[in-house]
Amino acid sequence: MSEEIVFDCLHSEIVNYCLLDNKENDFSTLEYIGYSTGYRLIERLTREWPRFKDELETMKFICTDFWTLIYKKQVDNLRTNHQGVYVLQDKAFRFLTRISPGTKQLEHAPKFVAFTCGLVRGALANLGINSTVTAEVQSIPSCKFHVQVKLN
Amino acid sequence: MSEEIVFDCLHSEIVNYCLLDNKENDFSTLEYIGYSTGYRLIERLTREWPRFKDELETMKFICTDFWTLIYKKQVDNLRTNHQGVYVLQDKAFRFLTRISPGTKQLEHAPKFVAFTCGLVRGALANLGINSTVTAEVQSIPSCKFHVQVKLN
Repeated sequence: MSEEIVFDCLHSEIVNYCLLDNKENDFSTLEYIGYSTGYRLIERLTREWPRFKDELETMKFICTDFWTLIYKKQVDNLRTNHQGVYVLQDKAFRFLTRISPGTKQLEHAPKFVAFTCGLVRGALANLGINSTVTAEVQSIPSCKFHVQVKLN
Repeated sequence: MSEEIVFDCLHSEIVNYCLLDNKENDFSTLEYIGYSTGYRLIERLTREWPRFKDELETMKFICTDFWTLIYKKQVDNLRTNHQGVYVLQDKAFRFLTRISPGTKQLEHAPKFVAFTCGLVRGALANLGINSTVTAEVQSIPSCKFHVQVKLN
């Protein structure tokens, strides 16, 4: 009996609730709840963690400690062009591990990643980095999160 | 660094989101998200737990294993009139432990208990018990959940 189940179920129900009567598949509410949760989490965590010396170090923190706190694993791969674009790949993204792999299922993927796009964007915002975060799912349960840092 | 923080933050943001532009303080959305989360949780858990022999045993399960899974502690006190009314008292209810005690704060309590009223009602529903669940907060962070079982 693991406590991740509680977070998973709550996440699922938020997804269901946000998409209820939402014919256009508008994921902005999910993204918004993710954003404010990420922002708030960093607020609660920064007492315990040091500040980071640069953008790359902040991004590494998101891939390791932050990801582990939420998903009980690290991001598997971090790539950057060193010009403000970062790609975080999670090869077994938890919210996708319960979906059966297959082309038909791929169309359902966006609703399972919107919250996390917001979560990353909110966490980065509270660490001083404004960004746009999108997700790309090519093969379930793997997911790539693209972070594009905005110039201040 | 505890993982309860993730669930706590997510809960807070759902509370904030549900009460955004909600001038009448209508807690039905929070209750609804709680209900479906509780219902779903039991679905995921019943593989691991046996069925219960009667209503009281089901209620004891809610006070112990179910409560511990979510709040990392048991309900402190369970009372019943043996006629379908149960009172579950949690003397340090987690969603209230961050509020400073005081009369003024008492008016904010309902938004922190609505989700859990739904959670208990949903869990019981999936265990075959239809009920009405309300909460009573007289002194923060203590909370009493009143369960009134409906006759089928």
